[in-house]
Amino acid sequence: MPLLVMKFGGTSVADLDRIANAAQKVKREVERGYDVIVIVSAMSGKTNELVGWVEATSPFYDAREYDAVVSSGENITAGLMALRLQEMNVPARSWQGWQVPIHTTSAHSAARFKSIPRDNIDAKFAEGMRVAVVSGFQGLSEEGRITTLGRGGSDTTAVAFAAAFGAERCDIYTDVDGVYTTDPRVSSKARKLDRIAYEEMLELASLGAKVLQTRSVELAMRNNVRLRVLSSFEDTDETSGTLVCGEDEIMESKIVSGVAFSRDEAKMTLVTVEDRPGIASGIFGTLADAGVNVDMIVQNISERNYGDHIEAVTDMTFSCPINQVSRAKKALEDAQAANALGYEDLVVDTEVAKVSVVGIGMRSHAGVAARMFKALAAENVNIKVIATSEIKISVLVDRKYLELAVQALHDAFDLDKAG
Amino acid sequence: MPLLVMKFGGTSVADLDRIANAAQKVKREVERGYDVIVIVSAMSGKTNELVGWVEATSPFYDAREYDAVVSSGENITAGLMALRLQEMNVPARSWQGWQVPIHTTSAHSAARFKSIPRDNIDAKFAEGMRVAVVSGFQGLSEEGRITTLGRGGSDTTAVAFAAAFGAERCDIYTDVDGVYTTDPRVSSKARKLDRIAYEEMLELASLGAKVLQTRSVELAMRNNVRLRVLSSFEDTDETSGTLVCGEDEIMESKIVSGVAFSRDEAKMTLVTVEDRPGIASGIFGTLADAGVNVDMIVQNISERNYGDHIEAVTDMTFSCPINQVSRAKKALEDAQAANALGYEDLVVDTEVAKVSVVGIGMRSHAGVAARMFKALAAENVNIKVIATSEIKISVLVDRKYLELAVQALHDAFDLDKAG
Repeated sequence: MPLLVMKFGGTSVADLDRIANAAQKVKREVERGYDVIVIVSAMSGKTNELVGWVEATSPFYDAREYDAVVSSGENITAGLMALRLQEMNVPARSWQGWQVPIHTTSAHSAARFKSIPRDNIDAKFAEGMRVAVVSGFQGLSEEGRITTLGRGGSDTTAVAFAAAFGAERCDIYTDVDGVYTTDPRVSSKARKLDRIAYEEMLELASLGAKVLQTRSVELAMRNNVRLRVLSSFEDTDETSGTLVCGEDEIMESKIVSGVAFSRDEAKMTLVTVEDRPGIASGIFGTLADAGVNVDMIVQNISERNYGDHIEAVTDMTFSCPINQVSRAKKALEDAQAANALGYEDLVVDTEVAKVSVVGIGMRSHAGVAARMFKALAAENVNIKVIATSEIKISVLVDRKYLELAVQALHDAFDLDKAG
Repeated sequence: MPLLVMKFGGTSVADLDRIANAAQKVKREVERGYDVIVIVSAMSGKTNELVGWVEATSPFYDAREYDAVVSSGENITAGLMALRLQEMNVPARSWQGWQVPIHTTSAHSAARFKSIPRDNIDAKFAEGMRVAVVSGFQGLSEEGRITTLGRGGSDTTAVAFAAAFGAERCDIYTDVDGVYTTDPRVSSKARKLDRIAYEEMLELASLGAKVLQTRSVELAMRNNVRLRVLSSFEDTDETSGTLVCGEDEIMESKIVSGVAFSRDEAKMTLVTVEDRPGIASGIFGTLADAGVNVDMIVQNISERNYGDHIEAVTDMTFSCPINQVSRAKKALEDAQAANALGYEDLVVDTEVAKVSVVGIGMRSHAGVAARMFKALAAENVNIKVIATSEIKISVLVDRKYLELAVQALHDAFDLDKAG
């Protein structure tokens, strides 16, 4: 029988009514002829409760015990979901991670999949079970201890099962109904995408469109798992949501698929840094040691006449999340005081935001950047930093222009129009 | 190293503070030189919450899924207890039933132990672990599913581990500080017993002194596990609580160890039942089919002259819990209407209570019954039914005389005096 993986996140199984609602969606797929593997999260709030107890008991906790405690949230949902399905006359049973068994590394609270043997679950499908309800987010270490994958691991579990069982598709039910061209709260013209390529989804996810965990999209791309994002809270059918898939399945000819943005950025500029080998590594090594997530980096080289000699100097600009500014500033100033760095001034701008256009069409189309800059110029939006990758162009602008910039770009690339 | 099993019930681990308090007691035993196996229940209230969810999801639930869901309560406590002990610098880890593994039958929600292999836990003790915190009340079926033992199974888990690991003692921490000669709420002279024999404890437990599960006492007796009942909420030392042990360890020469009672009894009499073979089996078969727990049974045979013939007749009296009276009555009347039984009248007395004296000393001492009846007669307490076993004499009396009867018997057998 064809097989489907369906994943329900915490809000989709938040209480018994929602579990029943999710079970209804599973039953429909069974009636369509699918065997189904359902991956469930803990009922929303449960994981936080368990984490709270662990942290209160032991501030520097043993991650093995943390995993043993926290994983029980998913086990509870799995049992309840199996019961609900049975109540609807769907042959179902629950599977805890160790029962499958889901083999992972021993990196507790951040474990990675090693293998998911199919034997046990396949044997039950062969006996007539139609739905295997599997606890997401967990696995079994070589030492026989329970592991967890870290937050968001349930999406990744779903993709890993879809890959292991050769599922026709992996449907991720969540509280949004798909992936949009941009945030509908910022542009009323935002349109739900029918399809999006893995690479585009990765750029959108890491830019803040919090629909799917980056790690699950990477895993889907690597294993060519067709991923569908759709709403738990609406009636859905085979065409609902957004399909995340390979480029070969994308028929649309759009150059740009979406406009992503990140509101809380800061720009820091080290003014007049000596231009010599090793200086960049000194700066960004210092920042990495301080745990600062540097995003964009721009360097401008110029020459300065000191009278007796001419020296090549550079301004080094980078962006980081606004809540890391003080940490970044302290790290750089400490390094400066220790004579490990040499710069004339440190200029911080905490009033910026990042806007990006993303699309695999860029690869084969020239002029995307020009079209972007022109659209921003037409609205008098000043561009402070530019960074480009193969399928993405990002700019920093004053935060007050963020909405304007997003709307202008959405219009400029005709994202409100399908096809 | 000598080994101790310590068991903490739901109220003893009801919240993080109480878990910390229990951990303190464990640490003390480790400092005394014991390796310890701790058996934990779910935090009180947790199991009821989980059971509620299961029943709301599926009224006639699959017991396998019920067990999978409900067992998570103990797993949470086990992890938290291990973390708390680690925080106190005691090398500890949690063990879920399947990790030990605790092999049980596949009778879900009412499973029985098959074996508890020592290898895994012993290996960790050998590596320096001092405390194994084991989830009570659960095990693993041959099919690899999680089983539970049914309510009260945590006491039984503790005794089973004590037997498997040859523990020096099995300490059951609970919300009372030991076993009393009678309920202190009924007699202010009630005295805590230092020791009590398994057989006596069994009679007291089944009579309503709800300190230990009957099944755990049976298992302890069969395996000669020394069982100690003591309070979680008081400072305790090696002499605290009550030791439940073999007769050979009991030095006291009391004939009677305690006075038990049960308030909510009913007495039912079938008047003038034909005295022929099969009549008792007809009556009590009918009651068993109706799920009535018959306790005492008394039969008086007499002859009745019907003029043309003399017939042997009998009055058949039995007792049962008061809340089963209507069920019993209906079953008997239905059988009477179907001509399956023949009696002249059915007399129900719902105003009775049962009082019992229990003691292994009775075996070797005559006159216990006489002393009991005399004490009751001195207080003008009328005895309605008498039943005796090897180490117990029970009587039914009017409920209004219950307290008086208990106090009189407590005095008559000098239970307020030690030794």
